[in-house]
This record gives sequence, C-alpha cells and structure tokens, in this order.
Amino acid sequence: MGIVLGRNRYGKAETRVVRVTRSGTRHAIKDVNVSVSLSGAMEDAHLTGDNAAVLPTDSQKNTVFAFAKKHGIEAIEDFGLLLARHFVDSQPTITHARVEIREYSWDRITGGHSFVRTGGEVRTALIHSDGDGGAESVVSGLEDLVVLKSTGSEFHGFVQDEFTTLEPTDDRVLATAVTARWRHRSTGYGGWDDSYRGARHHLLHAFAETHSLSLQQTLFQMGRRVLDERDELCEIRLSMPNKHHFLVDLEPFGMDNDNEVYFAADRPYGLIEGTVLTDDAPRAASAWE
Amino acid sequence: MGIVLGRNRYGKAETRVVRVTRSGTRHAIKDVNVSVSLSGAMEDAHLTGDNAAVLPTDSQKNTVFAFAKKHGIEAIEDFGLLLARHFVDSQPTITHARVEIREYSWDRITGGHSFVRTGGEVRTALIHSDGDGGAESVVSGLEDLVVLKSTGSEFHGFVQDEFTTLEPTDDRVLATAVTARWRHRSTGYGGWDDSYRGARHHLLHAFAETHSLSLQQTLFQMGRRVLDERDELCEIRLSMPNKHHFLVDLEPFGMDNDNEVYFAADRPYGLIEGTVLTDDAPRAASAWE
Amino acid sequence: MGIVLGRNRYGKAETRVVRVTRSGTRHAIKDVNVSVSLSGAMEDAHLTGDNAAVLPTDSQKNTVFAFAKKHGIEAIEDFGLLLARHFVDSQPTITHARVEIREYSWDRITGGHSFVRTGGEVRTALIHSDGDGGAESVVSGLEDLVVLKSTGSEFHGFVQDEFTTLEPTDDRVLATAVTARWRHRSTGYGGWDDSYRGARHHLLHAFAETHSLSLQQTLFQMGRRVLDERDELCEIRLSMPNKHHFLVDLEPFGMDNDNEVYFAADRPYGLIEGTVLTDDAPRAASAWE
Amino acid sequence: MGIVLGRNRYGKAETRVVRVTRSGTRHAIKDVNVSVSLSGAMEDAHLTGDNAAVLPTDSQKNTVFAFAKKHGIEAIEDFGLLLARHFVDSQPTITHARVEIREYSWDRITGGHSFVRTGGEVRTALIHSDGDGGAESVVSGLEDLVVLKSTGSEFHGFVQDEFTTLEPTDDRVLATAVTARWRHRSTGYGGWDDSYRGARHHLLHAFAETHSLSLQQTLFQMGRRVLDERDELCEIRLSMPNKHHFLVDLEPFGMDNDNEVYFAADRPYGLIEGTVLTDDAPRAASAWE
Repeated sequence: MGIVLGRNRYGKAETRVVRVTRSGTRHAIKDVNVSVSLSGAMEDAHLTGDNAAVLPTDSQKNTVFAFAKKHGIEAIEDFGLLLARHFVDSQPTITHARVEIREYSWDRITGGHSFVRTGGEVRTALIHSDGDGGAESVVSGLEDLVVLKSTGSEFHGFVQDEFTTLEPTDDRVLATAVTARWRHRSTGYGGWDDSYRGARHHLLHAFAETHSLSLQQTLFQMGRRVLDERDELCEIRLSMPNKHHFLVDLEPFGMDNDNEVYFAADRPYGLIEGTVLTDDAPRAASAWE
Repeated sequence: MGIVLGRNRYGKAETRVVRVTRSGTRHAIKDVNVSVSLSGAMEDAHLTGDNAAVLPTDSQKNTVFAFAKKHGIEAIEDFGLLLARHFVDSQPTITHARVEIREYSWDRITGGHSFVRTGGEVRTALIHSDGDGGAESVVSGLEDLVVLKSTGSEFHGFVQDEFTTLEPTDDRVLATAVTARWRHRSTGYGGWDDSYRGARHHLLHAFAETHSLSLQQTLFQMGRRVLDERDELCEIRLSMPNKHHFLVDLEPFGMDNDNEVYFAADRPYGLIEGTVLTDDAPRAASAWE
Repeated sequence: MGIVLGRNRYGKAETRVVRVTRSGTRHAIKDVNVSVSLSGAMEDAHLTGDNAAVLPTDSQKNTVFAFAKKHGIEAIEDFGLLLARHFVDSQPTITHARVEIREYSWDRITGGHSFVRTGGEVRTALIHSDGDGGAESVVSGLEDLVVLKSTGSEFHGFVQDEFTTLEPTDDRVLATAVTARWRHRSTGYGGWDDSYRGARHHLLHAFAETHSLSLQQTLFQMGRRVLDERDELCEIRLSMPNKHHFLVDLEPFGMDNDNEVYFAADRPYGLIEGTVLTDDAPRAASAWE
Repeated sequence: MGIVLGRNRYGKAETRVVRVTRSGTRHAIKDVNVSVSLSGAMEDAHLTGDNAAVLPTDSQKNTVFAFAKKHGIEAIEDFGLLLARHFVDSQPTITHARVEIREYSWDRITGGHSFVRTGGEVRTALIHSDGDGGAESVVSGLEDLVVLKSTGSEFHGFVQDEFTTLEPTDDRVLATAVTARWRHRSTGYGGWDDSYRGARHHLLHAFAETHSLSLQQTLFQMGRRVLDERDELCEIRLSMPNKHHFLVDLEPFGMDNDNEVYFAADRPYGLIEGTVLTDDAPRAASAWE
C-alpha cells in the first residue's frame, strides 16, 4: 500500500481591499474580500518541501492590490477573471485558479465622499479558470438575504411516522436567510451588475409572490423565476434555512394568539438545499467547487 | 472579616419576539430582542437559596410574549417602559427593573406581507424604572452604523514619543462602526420614532459634513449636532472604533498609490469613546447601567 | 428550454442534545449537535408543493431525541449510522440520508456529576447511507485544533514573480487551526473512539515532529502519518489556514527582534487544503458531500 | 444651554502579541491580546481638533510590542501595570491609563517548541493606573468557563404570578458559562499566577460541591469560596447565563425521560449577575470600568 497526494489547492484567503475612484470631487468606493486558490504542479512542495513551483500566498495578496490599482475594480466577476487568468497565464507551474470575491455595498450619505454600509447582505462571485482561452466558469450570488412572510405559507399533507407530532398548518410565518449562487452560461457575458440586480430582484419577488406550500416549493419557484427571466444563467443553487417562528401559546394567560405573537427560534432549524437548472445547461466542471 | 452580597440583578435575556399586526390584508411586523433584569429583595435567594422573592425568568419571558399580544409593540421605548413598570409594580420584592430591547428593521418587498431585512444596523433602547411614578430613564440608540469617508480626514500635530513612528497625514480614509446611545430628558416624551430618525440622521450628516482632524473631533461634532438639534435629549455616548484603512505600498511594483488602494485591517484598531452632554443635563442615576 | 430540479436535500440542522447516563451516582454526559439531511422522491414537493413524500424536519428532530433515549449515544459514528439507516429504511420515499454530528467534550471536575468543557476543539462525524445493506460511508474528524511551532519552520526557494516581495526565511513561527476529516475503509469498523484518539494523536505529533519547509509539506506529513498508523483509514483531507505571525520591526526603537516578538494577524491568511490517500482507497461516492 | 464634553477615553484595542522566550532549545510562549485606553487633557482634541495632547494609538501599539521585547511577558497583571504606569508617567497630558489583557493558554505537544491551544477559556486582567505611586487597581478574571451539573440542582418555592407556568423541580441540569472578575486588595501582590490558579480552582469546586437551590445561590457560594480562600482578594463579580437544558417530552413516542435526554437551548437564557465582597473591601474607584 502506498500513500499518495490527492487533490490540493493553496492560496491567500480574505484579502480585504477598498478601492477609491475619483471623478472630480465625487468619489466611488468598492469594498471587497478576495480569496485566491491555485493548483498545479505541487507534488514536490508536498512530498519533499521543495518550493520551486510555489508562488507565495504573499505574492498573491500583492497581486490583488496591484491589480486593484492598475485595472480598478468594476464588477467583481471581471476582477476575478482578470486575477484568475493572470495566475495561470503567468506561472508555468499553475494550471488552475479559483478566485472567490465577496462585496460589501455602501450607500452615499451626502456630498461626494461619505458612505454608509447598506446592510448585512453580501454579493459574491466564484471564478474558476484554466487560463485565458481554457475552461472557465463564473458563478455569481448573494448571501444573507433575510426574508420573511407573515402569511401566505402553508405546510400539510406530509408523512406521518411514529415520531411525527407536528400539526399541519394552513397559515404560518415563513422566514429564511437565502444563500443563492447562479452559474453563467458564458464567462464572456459582461453585464454582470445588471445580471446581479435582476437575479436578486427575481429571487425577492418570487419569494413574495409565491403562495408557499413548503419551503422546497418556494425554493424551486425562486430558482425557476431567475432562470426564466435571465437567459444568461443556466443553473442556480439555493440553500435556505427554515428560520422557525413558533406561535406562542398564550392560552395559560387567557389570551388567544391569532398568528400575532411569534417566538423566533435559533436552533435547530430546517435546512433546504436545492439546485434548479435548465435542461440545456452546459457541464459545470469545477464551477461550484 | 465578613463576606457580603453586593449589587446583583437577574432576569431573562434575549427573548426573541416577532409581532405581526394586520390592517386588512396589509401586515406590519416588529422584530425585537428583549432582555429583562430585575433587582430587589434578593438576599435570601443568594444566601440561603430561598426563592420566595424570585419571579422566575421563565415568567419574565412569558410576560414579554403576553404584553406583545395585549399591548402590541409600537416604539421599543414604550414597550420597555410598560414591561419595566409592570415588574416593579406587580411584584412586592422587585424594586428596580432594567429592560433592554434591540430592534431589527425590515423593508417591504411587494404586496402586503413579504419583508426583507434592512441591514446590519440595530436600534436599541435601555429602560430603567423604579416603578410607575418612581425614578425612570430612557436611553435610545443604535449599533453597527458603519460609515466611511474616502477623503476629508487629516491627522497630525500629535505627540511624538520614543515609540512614535506614525507619519502625519492630511488625507486619509476614516471609517468606523458607530455605537451611539442618547439619554432622553424625560420618559414621558412619546415621539420616540421621530426622535430616533432625527438622531440617526444628524449622526450621519455630522459625520459626512465634518472635515475631520481626528476621530475624537468627529465624535464630538456628531454628539453636539444631535444635542443641538434634538431638545428632548440631554446626553449622548459614542463608541467609535477607528477601522484602519492602510494605504498599500505599491512602489515595489512600480506603481504610485494616490489614495486609491487601501487594505482594510481587522486588529488592532483605535477605539474612541466619549460623552457629550448639555450643561443642564439632569442626573443620570442608573440610566447607563 | 425546460427548467428542471437538480440535486437536492433537506433536513433538520443542529439539534442540540445532551444525553445523561447514570452508573450509580456516577454520571456520564454526551453533548452533541446533530444535523440530518434526507434525499429521495422529492420532485412533487418542489414542483407542485405536494408534501406526501416529505418526512417533516420536525419529525427528524424528534427521532434524534427518541434515539438518544432508546439507544444512548456512544461513539457519534455509531449514532449517526443508526439514524441514517433508520430514515432510509423506514421511509419509502427516502433513498439517502446524510447525518453530521459535532461533539463537544467535557472533563469531570470532582464528584460524580459536575463537568467543565474541555476546549474549543470539536470532534466530528459525517455519515452517508443508502440504508441498511446499501452503500455507506463514515468520515470522522476534528475542527479547530489550534497548533503553533515557535521554531523549526522554514520557507524559501519559492517562485519570484514581479509581485513577490516576501523574504525567504529559515526560522519562522508556524501556526494553524487544523480541520481534518478522515475516511474509514468500512462502516463496520467499530473502534471509533480509539480511532479518533489515534488520529488526533498522530496529527499532533506529526505537526510537532516535522521540521517544516512549508505548510504544504507539513500537511502531507500529518496526513501520511495518520494513514501509516491507522489501517482502518484510507483517506484524509486537511484544511490548514496559515495563521500568520509577523516578526515586529523593533529597530525604530533601537531594539533587535531575534524571533521573540510576533504580531498575530487576522486577515488575510494563507489557506492550504490537501488530500492524502492510500493507493488502494475504495471509491468515495458521496462520502465527502 | 451649553454643550460640553463629558467622560472620554481613547486607545488602541486588541493588539495581538505572541512572545517567545527561549531557555536553550526549550521555548515558552505567551499569547495575549492587549487593549490600552488613555484619558487626560483631551478637551482640545475633541473641541478644536488640536492633537497636541494626543499620543497616537499607533504609538500605544508600538509600546506594547517594545515592552514585550524589553520586559518579556510574565503575569499579565504585571505587564498591564508596566504599560499603564508608563503611559501616565511618560506623557504629561495623560492622567489615567486603563489596560485590559486577555490571555490564551497553550499546552506543550512534545519537544521544546510545539504547542496546542488549551481551550475556549480566557484569562483576563484589567488594570487602572494614575501613574506610579498614584491610585491603581488590578482586577483579574476569566471568561467562558463552561460548566454543567447533571444533577444536584433544584428550583422551587418561587413567586407565582399570572404569567408563571414553570413547574418547580427538584432535579434539573444546571449549566452556565462563567465570566468572573476578582479585585485584588493591592496592586503590589505579585503572586498573580498562583492567585489565578487558586481562584479558578475554587470557582470550579464550589460549583461542583454546592447542592444548587438556584443559580443565584450557586453564584454566591462560588464568590464566597474564592474570597474565603484567597486573602489577597476583596471582591468578585460573576455573570452567569443560565444555559437552559430542557427535558425533552418523549411521551408521544411511548418513552419516559428520567432526566436522560435534554435539549440545549440557545435563546432566551437566564442571566444572573452578582457581586460578592468582603465587608472591609477598600473603595473600588474606577477598578471595574
């Protein structure tokens, strides 16, 4: 029996860059968190400690900063593609790059250079590249989009086994924190910001407009809506915790509770995960890894 | 030498209530986190384990839910006052109540009953009461209001000691996550929501409109603006971490960096804490505890 | 173009169970966090909202509690296998179960029933099952095993590109928070606790005893050691952030710094991820998902 | 009505230092997180932005590193006193210093220079100083000492009001995460490490050996034990969340639950806070701020 090296990758995670751009006295800022992972001819690095193939993670960090200066940061998808191609194309030992970017959004307060953070929600991009002209993928997304419906949600008709005590309901609170990632058909798309705004809009509106029979059904409707409306996308993956809101029993205090007072629980929570895709979606390769 | 019981309090922390109110098919929601702390004749409870004076924390939690039903939740300051007075007035052994409420805000998506969480920022209220007619205080506030100026901030003229290596600057990024709490002159004010919106607005605008010579000076201007504009307030306390954004040295890569590319650091960070008050502010008693 | 449902799973996450077992006046406790995910005939649930195939996540939670009573909780691997098989075997619509368990460890203080939490480190198990007699896998592991070497770590001989400014070093601090997961050859092994203690021991000792030429090389040595010593294992995956400790420049203060004073940085950090396996390792199927 | 500056302080928070000390090939490490806050003649800094009295927080950070080199780090209480006195004594504009230190503990793995983090628990020190020879205080402590009793805990005889539904119990799980801070009679004590080990030991043993009638009673016993046994201490403050473990109702599944299966809840939780002190305790001044 021999012992061998399997899949591996390495890189610099969470380089926090704020890029300021001036147009006269009016400034714009981009606030991003960039994580780079590289793969390639890394056998010797692992087996003998010979680092001849290793571009230091410190150099990767420097590259992120230098590229922010040289190219600016427009859509995070473009910035990620630039970086990923750079590493593979400039380093003979690197055959694959993965770049993950998280973007925090800011609103203007007043004047040209003062800003306030918009909220907890984060825009994401995940780029894979084998180098310019090679296999590539772009997955865009968001995290922590917290939504709630105070009615318009049912849950019944489910399996009853010996451990089932849940009562069916035709009116409950439905709340979740959406993590969604959607795969683009092509990395040459370009309209990333418009695509992001569209996908986000359709997720929110499908959530609001679907009369829910389960979180699974809502998830599918949200995914379908995005794919129906955005031709540039071919697949979407959603992870939606069911943030339980339990109706409080007020009867001991002589009160009814007509879906008015809820206890928002922490754990445990339901967790619904699903993929929706078009039947002509190209192969995903490493897009989701 | 004897060993004695000193100050003490007990209660139920972080009861998470979502209260739904209907107006036809249009719903409104209030999402709050309520922490109750009670004090009083608790010697026996501590010294002998006799619980005859102890209202269980479980009952406190039930009271929060029952009051949410009975009274609804309008301004969190009012809800806190209701609760605090109730505990002192209804329990002979309880002489003082402290109620702290955190409120998470939601925007409407579309239709009457679908909502999306607004952001990371939290509205707060801290109520102390010795019971109806007794000493009382209301402190309102906010947490995690994250703001940044991409210019209009200097820092120079400071002390130079043997450990000082910092270069003076006349142009830097200034960023902070504001925690602010402001004390009301009276608990009978009533216009809590208007007061909150006003204070928040003035904090943001004073931050944006102050040409900063230090975070201390900015803090004072923010506090002063709120007190200048809101007569119902007499004191404000601000805690403002200096979230350092360091200019990246790009010279090794043959690039200048004219305040364009910053590294957003985590730790250490500056921490500036200060109080601004009117010279006629009434005594605070336990308001801040 | 049609839109279809892809891979999906659902379940109850993070059910927190504490199981007490008595042997006379001597108690033992098991403190675990159980997450269940089920897959199967879920097309209708997603497409039409028909829940006839859906075992509620609430019932899954109840099952965890009931099984904790009925079977006790010995090794988390066994408890996970019991649960996973139960769901597939008892539910016609469920064809695959995934159970993830995290265990928090406790030490005895004194006497038979008082305990203190051991630390931040967590023991993990990930079980997949197609039901009794079907395909199954057990992956055990740990998280947040934080280790540091104050010397015996070098890093040099790496690639120099235009963005490389890092100086080679033959003496640095090496620190990481190990997340390790190892795959068992068989689910019928049984000696889970012994296996866990062994794997943990070998990870620690390989870290301590390897003169490090890079974190990649250290990672491989750690993985190899575990597989060399534990025949019941066939594959190990390690994720090791390089928690950078930077030597502080004290020269401005007239002091040298002979590897004595370090600044422990937060972000960015290196991230080294790798797999080590035996060349006869059976196919992994869904073991790692 | 005028608007004035009230209490204020500023400094550098969370400087993360790892100090290595060598004795031949045997190393020792100290891993600490140091937060400095200074107060003094800061009117101009706030009111006019004149920084002539301001020692930059960056210089404070440098001082922490330089002192770690020059003096080493033995007990965190001593290191805090050194720093606090230095700032007040060396800066004419600084009249008061507050230094807070958190220490993370490590165990040796094997050999002279490899370590593993001990756990989640943190040792703390809070030092106040008006300078060498002026008023000073040392408060030591710990955070996140998580303890649990699986029996030996009752709770009954409490107040019954209209919102009370809690059943009295003579056998429950009692669990808490202790935050404790204890004040030393003198800053000249010196035996800090011995004092810390003693206090921690007595907290644990008083928890284990007290038959609990309420968490308040347990808290008092823990505080009393520490003061009884450690003459160098005059006051202790404890904050103990009641981490509720609810007995799961297994009756629907035909099972009893004789205190065997518990659900560990997150929120809400009880929160018990109390002070125990000797009747001859000197005035605390700013010790706890």
